[in-house]
Amino acid sequence: MKTLVVLGSTGSVGRQTLEVVEAFPERFRVLGLSAASNWKLLAEQALRFRPRVVVIQQEDLYPRLREALPREIEVRAGDRALRELAAHPEADLVVSAIVGLAGLPPTLEALSAGKTVALANKEALVTGGELILRILREKRARILPVDSEHSALFQLLKGHRRREVRRLLLTASGGPFRKRPAESFARITPEEALKHPRWRMGAKITVDSATLMNKGLEVIEAHYLFGIPYSRIEVLIHPESIVHSLVEFRDGSLLAQLALPDMRLPIAYALSYPERLPLPYPRLDLTRSGPLTFEIPDLEKFPCLALAYEAGKSGGFWPVALNAANEVAVEAFLSRRLGFHLIPSLIRETLSRLSFSGKPGNLEEILAADRRARELAYDLVERLCLR
Amino acid sequence: MKTLVVLGSTGSVGRQTLEVVEAFPERFRVLGLSAASNWKLLAEQALRFRPRVVVIQQEDLYPRLREALPREIEVRAGDRALRELAAHPEADLVVSAIVGLAGLPPTLEALSAGKTVALANKEALVTGGELILRILREKRARILPVDSEHSALFQLLKGHRRREVRRLLLTASGGPFRKRPAESFARITPEEALKHPRWRMGAKITVDSATLMNKGLEVIEAHYLFGIPYSRIEVLIHPESIVHSLVEFRDGSLLAQLALPDMRLPIAYALSYPERLPLPYPRLDLTRSGPLTFEIPDLEKFPCLALAYEAGKSGGFWPVALNAANEVAVEAFLSRRLGFHLIPSLIRETLSRLSFSGKPGNLEEILAADRRARELAYDLVERLCLR
Repeated sequence: MKTLVVLGSTGSVGRQTLEVVEAFPERFRVLGLSAASNWKLLAEQALRFRPRVVVIQQEDLYPRLREALPREIEVRAGDRALRELAAHPEADLVVSAIVGLAGLPPTLEALSAGKTVALANKEALVTGGELILRILREKRARILPVDSEHSALFQLLKGHRRREVRRLLLTASGGPFRKRPAESFARITPEEALKHPRWRMGAKITVDSATLMNKGLEVIEAHYLFGIPYSRIEVLIHPESIVHSLVEFRDGSLLAQLALPDMRLPIAYALSYPERLPLPYPRLDLTRSGPLTFEIPDLEKFPCLALAYEAGKSGGFWPVALNAANEVAVEAFLSRRLGFHLIPSLIRETLSRLSFSGKPGNLEEILAADRRARELAYDLVERLCLR
Repeated sequence: MKTLVVLGSTGSVGRQTLEVVEAFPERFRVLGLSAASNWKLLAEQALRFRPRVVVIQQEDLYPRLREALPREIEVRAGDRALRELAAHPEADLVVSAIVGLAGLPPTLEALSAGKTVALANKEALVTGGELILRILREKRARILPVDSEHSALFQLLKGHRRREVRRLLLTASGGPFRKRPAESFARITPEEALKHPRWRMGAKITVDSATLMNKGLEVIEAHYLFGIPYSRIEVLIHPESIVHSLVEFRDGSLLAQLALPDMRLPIAYALSYPERLPLPYPRLDLTRSGPLTFEIPDLEKFPCLALAYEAGKSGGFWPVALNAANEVAVEAFLSRRLGFHLIPSLIRETLSRLSFSGKPGNLEEILAADRRARELAYDLVERLCLR
């Protein structure tokens, strides 16, 4: 019986985590749930899974949540309550599924308390990678990746020697504009960008998929998760999204992980690791999935991927700034203040005007660098909009 | 430094084994080599690799081999010398690369002596599977598969729990007649059957590829190698021969091994196991290899595959008889005494007329069953030819 805390339980990964938990009631017990603001769904989940504690981050929603739940469920609100839940002494596994930079503080908290964290939040490793590596070394903490690509790599590396790895090959669907000529990128509307060819996700990550920034952020995560230098992490466009990533070993052998694109698989793998659960979900039939194809990513058409590599290689505060500038750019694109083709330009411009000294030593320094980059990027959006 | 004995060093796998050895002189030392009759190549190999012992199976070739080699290399001849070489006390690894049933006795000898055997010979496990399992249990012996499909499965299972495996998926190129209508199978000539779409092999195994019997024999081998029941071993047609096999786990995750079709990779993996060598051979580039496709095998068109499953499930002497009848059928086809379409009929007819009691207890019983099946199959070929 594993005791779970699910941070961000009302989001897409959080909901799917609870689906897996529900399918295996004899294996998992939910100790705590948290949400940013969706108190109604949080209350429903709490009534179904009967956690000891629920936390709503937005403090003014506390009274409504408190009223919706019986006495025996402890209800708390705010960031401190969230961090305390992340480090709850009885939790065996903390699922970190909060979206955005807000996921970093509770993830750091859980790791600092020596917890095993099933990590779905991208920003934690992208912005806090070096800090997290230090915590992992000092505490007996551990990260189990939940993202499908990193879960694939994690599964593939199991049982094999890290030093015999020649390359990690992260696959990418290529997004909706893979075949569209770059000359017409200026005319891409938010509506077009939000039509992901394969599945539905949040707006931010869907745009990131379309610019390939999503894959760039995953490259940075892979670097920290697996300790492989950037020069040996590559991206392969694989429009069918069946192969979730590959590892090439130094003898020329490649191992690949394949499955239907269903987040419940990597979630379940992290929840039950090192076991695999007999999942009741639809299975991949390779004789029906059609041919599997692979292409080299076009870095001229999708410069965000190259920008992410650069920021990753520079290390320190640069991935923080990259992530911040990208968030501002995507938001500006979605609100029609910035052309799709200008997303990489805005990020590049922001990074070129920043300078940092030293490396992130703590959460506050990361948040400060994030704010600096964000403010600069906002300024630049305003100026670009004047043109 | 690993000390190797290579049985069948002048055959295709034997020669490629020595290529790998030559590329890593600091890792491998050749203690012994053997060949059936190709004394000239054997002498050349001996002069290059300087083994302590060489064995030529065909005894009348002894004088020529002896004369071709210097005094310090011990030269022996015959079956007993071969068996003694297989069990040489100083050998760390015995590469069993003799083709056909002739590979069974020295393989049994090596395993009985507690050796680790890199097994390329198919017939050993197909005909001696149950006997070999008993020896593996009793002695501290071990088999490392050399066949590309079994090497793929072996690599994929490493680090993962056997009981969490849902299915093994062996891939097959499908052979040259995958798309040819079954009605025209009677007109297939040996010349057509020997044109393998992807690479060159011996005549027997090329015909086995065309009938899918090759894959059937591999299914039986996989059953014994990995202890997975036949109901959970499946065959997938994969004409591009890039994915060498897959393992499906109970959570729906599939792991696959991919590489260029180059036997030196699985050979090197077995030689250096558990390490992987930095091989200098051409590497797979998925962006150039073209789409990867998968199909269900057509058992009506290729009944040999179904016959192999049946014989495998029946166990005991039945795989011995299957293998013997198939060899006779292929030989008769190659000498134009039997139509291609009659290969499975001959095997089925042979098996239907045989009965066995008990299970193979030793080598002699296997060889006797093999002879019985072969004689019956020869008889049937004669009678079919009269029609």
